[in-house]
Amino acid sequence: MIGASFGLALRQAGFDGTILGVSSPRAVESAIEASAIDRAAPLVEAVAQADLVFLSSTIGRILDAVRHLDPLVRPDALVTDAGSTKCEIVDLARQTLRRCQFLGGHPMAGKETRGAAAADAGLFQGRTWVLTPAEPAELETPMAREFQTWLERIGARLVVLDSDEHDRIVSRTSHLPQLASTALASLLGDVRRLEVSGSGLTDMTRLAASSYDLWRDILATNSGHIERALADYIQKLEHMRENLRTRQLQREFERGAASAGRLRRTV
Amino acid sequence: MIGASFGLALRQAGFDGTILGVSSPRAVESAIEASAIDRAAPLVEAVAQADLVFLSSTIGRILDAVRHLDPLVRPDALVTDAGSTKCEIVDLARQTLRRCQFLGGHPMAGKETRGAAAADAGLFQGRTWVLTPAEPAELETPMAREFQTWLERIGARLVVLDSDEHDRIVSRTSHLPQLASTALASLLGDVRRLEVSGSGLTDMTRLAASSYDLWRDILATNSGHIERALADYIQKLEHMRENLRTRQLQREFERGAASAGRLRRTV
Repeated sequence: MIGASFGLALRQAGFDGTILGVSSPRAVESAIEASAIDRAAPLVEAVAQADLVFLSSTIGRILDAVRHLDPLVRPDALVTDAGSTKCEIVDLARQTLRRCQFLGGHPMAGKETRGAAAADAGLFQGRTWVLTPAEPAELETPMAREFQTWLERIGARLVVLDSDEHDRIVSRTSHLPQLASTALASLLGDVRRLEVSGSGLTDMTRLAASSYDLWRDILATNSGHIERALADYIQKLEHMRENLRTRQLQREFERGAASAGRLRRTV
Repeated sequence: MIGASFGLALRQAGFDGTILGVSSPRAVESAIEASAIDRAAPLVEAVAQADLVFLSSTIGRILDAVRHLDPLVRPDALVTDAGSTKCEIVDLARQTLRRCQFLGGHPMAGKETRGAAAADAGLFQGRTWVLTPAEPAELETPMAREFQTWLERIGARLVVLDSDEHDRIVSRTSHLPQLASTALASLLGDVRRLEVSGSGLTDMTRLAASSYDLWRDILATNSGHIERALADYIQKLEHMRENLRTRQLQREFERGAASAGRLRRTV
């Protein structure tokens, strides 16, 4: 879905080079049908001619690709990715990708549906796209500059972060909300009369529908930050439990409302 | 908002009796403007002639009204309410309302906005309206039967529950989600780059915008069930933290997705 949306977005923004898709026969067929890629190619053939290699599968498969790409790439190519955690991918790329440049990325855009059939040329419009260079100079190479120009043309809001800072922030803005939603929904197994609920419960359990297949790798590659985020969340909930009837709770409601408002003015 | 929506819904369903509004001058003016009530009246005057007294303010004010209504009501009147917790209100009504019937109620419909200006004749359409009789016979009195007929006419889905069962369920389907959202949003105070977030965070912090004014009474009148719900939630999160890399987490994702799916087939 992300890879095909990137292809569609590039085309809509005026990119007229060739876009090759590397995936399962069914996935590339769907991507061709969506006009997101020109044609399918085996990894070795695609990478041998690519100026930009965009890795947008699960983190486990991105790590696999990074491990094997070095002998296959053109020396002036840029390899980038769309993985939801950055430290492990960027660290591995520094060790293995020596013949070409790697620049870690994370487009903060998603849908509940997967696959090219759900691709959307406007998916990145107005959404944050994080880049995590190991050092600032990595953003200034000709290929990195051209890549950033295309990201701007497809409407993405570029944010540059250190990999670890990225992983720390998303542990709170993405991974913790996912686990909070899953835990809440999991507890509902004991509730027989779910019609006795307000619309807020639907909001709070939307993320719980997410597939574990995608989350396994995210949790495994960011467990340190996620453990700390969960510990802070548990501590906050304990504090609220001990203060259900005191002014402390009013303060938490005020803090929460302030952050919810700030989020809405930001995104 | 709830009271005025009930007035509008009754009118749209064909009710042609008089609807009196008891509230602040500004609130009743807004309700008259919205055609939700015919006219304003002081509490004593309104209650002296009402067949149905519908209490739809904060729980604290509902408790206040229940404490003082008995000498004012007509003996064949039905007093009901829209309070979000039921045990304290129903228990107090059993002690104080001796000259007329009381039947506890909780329409599970809401909006983020308050006041008659946000009233909506379709607010209760397809939504659950819980009734909490102290014993089943209370549903069979002529006034209770007529009230239920009107609830059906405005499209509400009637659910009959024991007060304590109601309070236990909503502690998990409404009060816990509120606190989970507030706690999550409150933690975001430490995150400077909120643009580094996905759309899931917006869903998960929508409830955090709720006003503490409404929640103070809810939390104070259901603290036992809420403490247990929070304890179970904290335990679930601890379990997830200890199992970030094990199959246990996959099971929690599966349980959560199953409950999220069941909720969507139910509401």
